[in-house]
Amino acid sequence: MTGRDTWGAFAARMHEQSDLGGVLGLLGWDEQVICPPGGREARALQGATLAAIAHQRLVDPAYGEAIDAADALADLTVEQRAMLREARRQRDKATKLPEAFVRRLAEQRSRTNQAWEHARTTGAFADYRPALEELMRLKIEEADLLRGDGTRYDALLDEFEPGMRLERLQPLLADLRARLVPFAQRILDRPAPDVSVLERGFDPAAQEAFSLRVLRDLGFDFERGRQDRSTHPFTGGTAPTDIRLTTRIWEHWLPACLYASVHECGHGLYEQGHAESLWRSTVSAAPSLGLHESQSRLYENVIGRSLAFWEHYLPVAREHFPGQLDDVDALGMQRAVCRVARTPIRVESDEVTYNLHILLRFELEVDLIEQRVAVADLPEIWNARMAEYLGYAPKDDVEGVMQDVHWSEGYIGYFPTYTLGNLYSAGLLEAMRRDLDVDGLVRAGAFGAILAWLREQVHRHGAVTPGEELMREATGRDLGSDAFMAYLEERYGALYGL
Amino acid sequence: MTGRDTWGAFAARMHEQSDLGGVLGLLGWDEQVICPPGGREARALQGATLAAIAHQRLVDPAYGEAIDAADALADLTVEQRAMLREARRQRDKATKLPEAFVRRLAEQRSRTNQAWEHARTTGAFADYRPALEELMRLKIEEADLLRGDGTRYDALLDEFEPGMRLERLQPLLADLRARLVPFAQRILDRPAPDVSVLERGFDPAAQEAFSLRVLRDLGFDFERGRQDRSTHPFTGGTAPTDIRLTTRIWEHWLPACLYASVHECGHGLYEQGHAESLWRSTVSAAPSLGLHESQSRLYENVIGRSLAFWEHYLPVAREHFPGQLDDVDALGMQRAVCRVARTPIRVESDEVTYNLHILLRFELEVDLIEQRVAVADLPEIWNARMAEYLGYAPKDDVEGVMQDVHWSEGYIGYFPTYTLGNLYSAGLLEAMRRDLDVDGLVRAGAFGAILAWLREQVHRHGAVTPGEELMREATGRDLGSDAFMAYLEERYGALYGL
Repeated sequence: MTGRDTWGAFAARMHEQSDLGGVLGLLGWDEQVICPPGGREARALQGATLAAIAHQRLVDPAYGEAIDAADALADLTVEQRAMLREARRQRDKATKLPEAFVRRLAEQRSRTNQAWEHARTTGAFADYRPALEELMRLKIEEADLLRGDGTRYDALLDEFEPGMRLERLQPLLADLRARLVPFAQRILDRPAPDVSVLERGFDPAAQEAFSLRVLRDLGFDFERGRQDRSTHPFTGGTAPTDIRLTTRIWEHWLPACLYASVHECGHGLYEQGHAESLWRSTVSAAPSLGLHESQSRLYENVIGRSLAFWEHYLPVAREHFPGQLDDVDALGMQRAVCRVARTPIRVESDEVTYNLHILLRFELEVDLIEQRVAVADLPEIWNARMAEYLGYAPKDDVEGVMQDVHWSEGYIGYFPTYTLGNLYSAGLLEAMRRDLDVDGLVRAGAFGAILAWLREQVHRHGAVTPGEELMREATGRDLGSDAFMAYLEERYGALYGL
Repeated sequence: MTGRDTWGAFAARMHEQSDLGGVLGLLGWDEQVICPPGGREARALQGATLAAIAHQRLVDPAYGEAIDAADALADLTVEQRAMLREARRQRDKATKLPEAFVRRLAEQRSRTNQAWEHARTTGAFADYRPALEELMRLKIEEADLLRGDGTRYDALLDEFEPGMRLERLQPLLADLRARLVPFAQRILDRPAPDVSVLERGFDPAAQEAFSLRVLRDLGFDFERGRQDRSTHPFTGGTAPTDIRLTTRIWEHWLPACLYASVHECGHGLYEQGHAESLWRSTVSAAPSLGLHESQSRLYENVIGRSLAFWEHYLPVAREHFPGQLDDVDALGMQRAVCRVARTPIRVESDEVTYNLHILLRFELEVDLIEQRVAVADLPEIWNARMAEYLGYAPKDDVEGVMQDVHWSEGYIGYFPTYTLGNLYSAGLLEAMRRDLDVDGLVRAGAFGAILAWLREQVHRHGAVTPGEELMREATGRDLGSDAFMAYLEERYGALYGL
């Protein structure tokens, strides 16, 4: 074979994996947005069949040989080397897990999910516990199958945050907690701002139109994407040319639709921004979930909750909601959308306390997987730590340990990526400000320059460069909490007169 | 292996094919209804990858061995025997066509389609001819690869109408033509009815709501299906529990949305009606396209254009379109939706002349594939025959030989299934009337009994029984044009006072 044939043989298999991934993406999107209720069971079977085929093709020894052969070629580009690296990583992971184990895990996830849903109606943790215990046993087994020279938690974390290790993450997040708990406390001691302006009844169609207007301004390409509605907002799609955002609309809470849209738009802009040379490859993807999340949080929080944002959008919002926002100014809107509160539910919390919710989960899941904490003890530890970090005692386990679906899905190592996203987003703001007048651009609604900066620094690279390294290059900083704390102090210091 | 294992090994592969077919169905539906324009290219690649995998798994010798092993089992049910028969038929067809040929054919279809679209803008048949000539050469090659002891046309027809042969179809359709040409002529000599009532501007949202109301009444299960919009209406979906109709709305032509919806609903009711024991099998499908089409035409024409239909629905329509239909009665509505005219375009024609459009195409495609007519001569023969059958001379080739996409798609043997659908639908009406007061039920909006009859006689059987045989059992008649001509004479004799 010529070098070109050798690369072609590898590329054909890589394209096939990418295409199957795109189709699986469509199945998932359709299930949450379109599929009639009666079709869900057939859809689950179709998805399982497709996933099994994709898995068979991934672990096929011939794919491994194609990777090895391509890897031996001279004169590969940096992008091609990265494609091979990612292909090998995906294959290695997949070959370590026996098919029978994968099926057992999937079944137990499904059972645990059902138990979780049921327990949320009864309110009894005891109805959830046995299923979660069994799932955690399997996750420990999975970690042992996957782990190299790191800890069990490292093995699971690597799925979401490749290259990250517990020994670096733990002190980083402990430092953040040490700074954040007293900072949050100072704010929570202040009088709470009035948010009633956000609770007026806002016409759903007008909310949707407003969100679409904002997405267009931010630069989301509707020739290569769309926005629909779903119960839980998410970003899906089948390719960088077909990116699908979803949002939800709550008539009496204006931020629900707007910030869900802007958050998902951050994800969507990122995926639309991968360089064309990466499409259909293993690196037309995020190098880490934390990096992906940094884009959504940059748009939702850093930009979307800024004073400049409301200076630009309050007049636009008034056009969409005639007469409903005449008695508030831009600062009033910012105050309302930046309210900090002792909110028991993570997804309803604010920029300041959000990471405390995450730290709590991170600490617990590490102890669970390293078997230092038993599932049975979760509610007690959860509630004690909520009191310690946030000064709030959950009134039951539904607003306590049973509020999130992640553990029932078997996602261990996922939660910290939310906080990494926040840390990265503040680092990006700091770096962007060295090149651009960010507030001035937002105030003028000139979002193009911001998007161009992100495209160049982050989006176009896909997973060619590992996530932490790419962020180091983009922000000029090592991963840490300095930039994020400075960002919080600037914004919330002003809003709360600290 | 036990008998159960042997059946299970076959069933697993059959289910996989069914699931992949469902996913391909979703890709096709999404492309026409949802996919953003920029995503089409990625979608085409994903579809090609999935189709290639499905084809590989279909021709896999291990599937053939699983079929043989299951076929050797004793005590199989009629349904199981039918599943094996259909699996074997699909595999035999697929193994006869080399992969390189399939790719060449797909590429030439795509090129011919593009040439067709281009020629429709220039109006020049010469811009279309070379691509169509090359495609016809490939179709002849395909027929020679596929044909058994029948003609080339038989080999292609078998794709759409399994078991049907040209030697039976030709006299059947010649007989129909001999009866239909003078019948149509008598009607066309009469004064044309006034259709202006259908051309008033009807609110699109109200049209959609009216169509949904009708679909609900007819029995379409929205828990297991939905209706969306697309440029060309079609019935898609992924499984009998997920059937997706599309319609289109023309503000100034009321029948466009209504009858597209009702037509597709006929297809959709059929697919929702397959017995649960057939799901995920090779026989949860129509045994022939003609049979499938009989269901859509039964609902659209036989029921949907009846006087009884408008006696029931005119008051409902008046609620949806206040003040717009006050000056017309049920008979006036029926007269308008049953107008017979010298329409050059097949899809805009009426029940009486529709089949003449089909007969013309059928005769030409048989002569093309048997090489008795050259592509270059198509326009002249087309126009001459239009004048002979319909008394109309197309003003150019766009409203003549270049009006349909079918030949550019390589569909040879498809057109006659439309007419078979019409013949079967009239046979079903005749049989149904022996059991039910069809007009009375329609007039009362009591569509449940009609659906139950069709479920029992037709829908639940899927492809267990070959199409013509199932229709013989349901109608009590051999395939022929008597019932259809009697139906036309009854309806149009009354409407046109013949």
